[in-house]
Amino acid sequence: MPIGYSQLPELLPVAGIRLASVAAGIRYQGRDDLVLMELAEGSHCAAVFTRNAFCAAPVIVARQHLARQQPRYLLINSGNANAGTGEPGLRDAQQTCVLLAEKAGCTAEQVLPFSTGVIGERLPVDCIEAVLDKALAGCSEAGWKAAAHAIMTTDTVAKGISRTFTAAGQKFTLTGMVKGAGMIRPDMATMLAYITCDAAVESEALQQCLNQAVERSFNRITVDGDTSTNDACVLVATGAQGTPLIYSGTAEYGALCEAVSEACETLAQLIVRDAEGATKFVTVRIENGRAPEECLQVAYTIAHSPLVKTALFASDPNWGRILAAVGRAGVESLDIEKISIFLGNVCIVRDGGVAEDYRERDGQRVMSQEEIVIRVVLERGDAVEQVWTSDLSHDYVRINAEYRT
Amino acid sequence: MPIGYSQLPELLPVAGIRLASVAAGIRYQGRDDLVLMELAEGSHCAAVFTRNAFCAAPVIVARQHLARQQPRYLLINSGNANAGTGEPGLRDAQQTCVLLAEKAGCTAEQVLPFSTGVIGERLPVDCIEAVLDKALAGCSEAGWKAAAHAIMTTDTVAKGISRTFTAAGQKFTLTGMVKGAGMIRPDMATMLAYITCDAAVESEALQQCLNQAVERSFNRITVDGDTSTNDACVLVATGAQGTPLIYSGTAEYGALCEAVSEACETLAQLIVRDAEGATKFVTVRIENGRAPEECLQVAYTIAHSPLVKTALFASDPNWGRILAAVGRAGVESLDIEKISIFLGNVCIVRDGGVAEDYRERDGQRVMSQEEIVIRVVLERGDAVEQVWTSDLSHDYVRINAEYRT
Repeated sequence: MPIGYSQLPELLPVAGIRLASVAAGIRYQGRDDLVLMELAEGSHCAAVFTRNAFCAAPVIVARQHLARQQPRYLLINSGNANAGTGEPGLRDAQQTCVLLAEKAGCTAEQVLPFSTGVIGERLPVDCIEAVLDKALAGCSEAGWKAAAHAIMTTDTVAKGISRTFTAAGQKFTLTGMVKGAGMIRPDMATMLAYITCDAAVESEALQQCLNQAVERSFNRITVDGDTSTNDACVLVATGAQGTPLIYSGTAEYGALCEAVSEACETLAQLIVRDAEGATKFVTVRIENGRAPEECLQVAYTIAHSPLVKTALFASDPNWGRILAAVGRAGVESLDIEKISIFLGNVCIVRDGGVAEDYRERDGQRVMSQEEIVIRVVLERGDAVEQVWTSDLSHDYVRINAEYRT
Repeated sequence: MPIGYSQLPELLPVAGIRLASVAAGIRYQGRDDLVLMELAEGSHCAAVFTRNAFCAAPVIVARQHLARQQPRYLLINSGNANAGTGEPGLRDAQQTCVLLAEKAGCTAEQVLPFSTGVIGERLPVDCIEAVLDKALAGCSEAGWKAAAHAIMTTDTVAKGISRTFTAAGQKFTLTGMVKGAGMIRPDMATMLAYITCDAAVESEALQQCLNQAVERSFNRITVDGDTSTNDACVLVATGAQGTPLIYSGTAEYGALCEAVSEACETLAQLIVRDAEGATKFVTVRIENGRAPEECLQVAYTIAHSPLVKTALFASDPNWGRILAAVGRAGVESLDIEKISIFLGNVCIVRDGGVAEDYRERDGQRVMSQEEIVIRVVLERGDAVEQVWTSDLSHDYVRINAEYRT
């Protein structure tokens, strides 16, 4: 059960976006595993992809296609990542685009393929081909809920967000969905996010808006430190309301960026809330660093420490483990005698040692909560960064040890 | 039960080294928790300490003392790390040296203190003071076995090694012991190693010998990626046989270095074999890298990946997780199409994709063994590095979640 999130909220239709979900039998039986998202003609699309050197075939193909034409269709399958499949895998990904393009009357380059699931198995192209007609016929603006379910793999709950925002006196709708139960699962290769709105946005501005939003949301979460071969995040602006194009540097653009950033942050946090085996949702916030980089270095060292994560699981205010993680984070000429560490609003370490007024029961009270903030003050500058993570539980080991058995 | 190691072998006495183990009641009841090691006058001593910025009080004091005088006594306690204890902790560590020096008739600077155990609690100096007379009276060359047991914390077995080696026609004895059940447990703050021999070795040559040995042994193991606040490794050459001083660059020095390196490698591997919750002993070997640094980068990314470690625990030849770890290791301009990955002697990935002749049952056979070699060939140079690690099991989470409860 995700932390602080019980079920998919109502997802509002976005003018210019139609979706269909169908059961292609790629891996799962008795559930939808293929989503077709149709973007209205004239839509602009931005995307960011995994930085893993071993990126999956659909990531390579989607990058190439996006560089050449604005897409009309996103074709997303769950159950098979089409990663580690070499040249044949690339051909498979291209082939699904060609097949869809023929039926939909567009070019193959106007189709972006996305895959998530097991690594190293060939994508069953015939299964996908067999249901393309049905998917094209079934596209509807009301298809969000089914799509958010169809892209799930080990997620325990479908994850999405809808909101409206106003820019230049015009009301727009933004709806997004995400799948992922770890920063990464190379095995269920991981995170896919789709955020759409019905504003009209100039292409480069849209990409810049997405880059900024991702940097402070999806690039600030970690479950296990592993980076997927298949991660992708797509932002679509359909312009289907016929409103004027939004350009960078305007007030409307500011409103758009705020809405997109907020949606990305919520969706990113939903991944951590639903992280494999997670019992805690943890914010690690580093303050007063010299530069953002060193704040992130400390934040990730804490967030990845198996000892900190098991202490979080045990609700054990074992501050020595946090302190040791700060000490090994590799920050140059760190003056440990200036450092303070807080659990929630409880100061546990002051001037590099345990705070004199610290009482174990106060730390215990914070650690027993489902949502925990670990705050480290470095006292050497004014940079601040935060990341979100989960704990390391018995269930994490069970899920990841037993997945293929 | 450690992997491939059942019990402490016979530890040979080393001329010039006398040890006593006593029960000081620092944390544990009904067992020895304080070791006094006496070094014969004229012994030379080298040491390396943790790189954690938050190093414990005894580490700070031992470093200072070692820089000024050759030590006559090592005073080692288990159960309390005297870390995160600030200025009072430093005074406590110094005080134990002063108390021992008064009774032993040496200077306080000739005593090196070592602590391992819980972080953030004051060291009970009175408990230690109360048993110093008994410890001094009990010192004996036959004290190794009891000492190897007395320094244990969460170790499941006492760990040590003895061997003899010949240099310049003279036979020498080398005996060492180690404690640690993780590269680090900031909570049981971790690794202590003591290696001694009865050769006479010039001081700087001794330190150089230790540095080289540690770099390829204790600095090549990881259980959970955390670095302790208390790690220390000490090498003593007593010269008690009255043989000529060994200098750097001689054949005798080569023989010494080989013996010390071999002992360090065995002791380091014993830590991994006894790692918390470990069911596998894993060698991660990276070949044909451009430089040792990038080989280590890839090796540690694999060795720290929770997904690789849970797959090892599950005996699951889930090569996609290894491949994804290689891909995210941050090696610049890595050509993934040249990479091969082997599990034992089974090639699982060739030219960046699954090997055509790979069969799941072959990978399964290797993964079912207790000792596993993961080998990655980068094909971009001739650097080779290897690290040793363990898997991530239910018991790792249990041990680290339940430790203080």
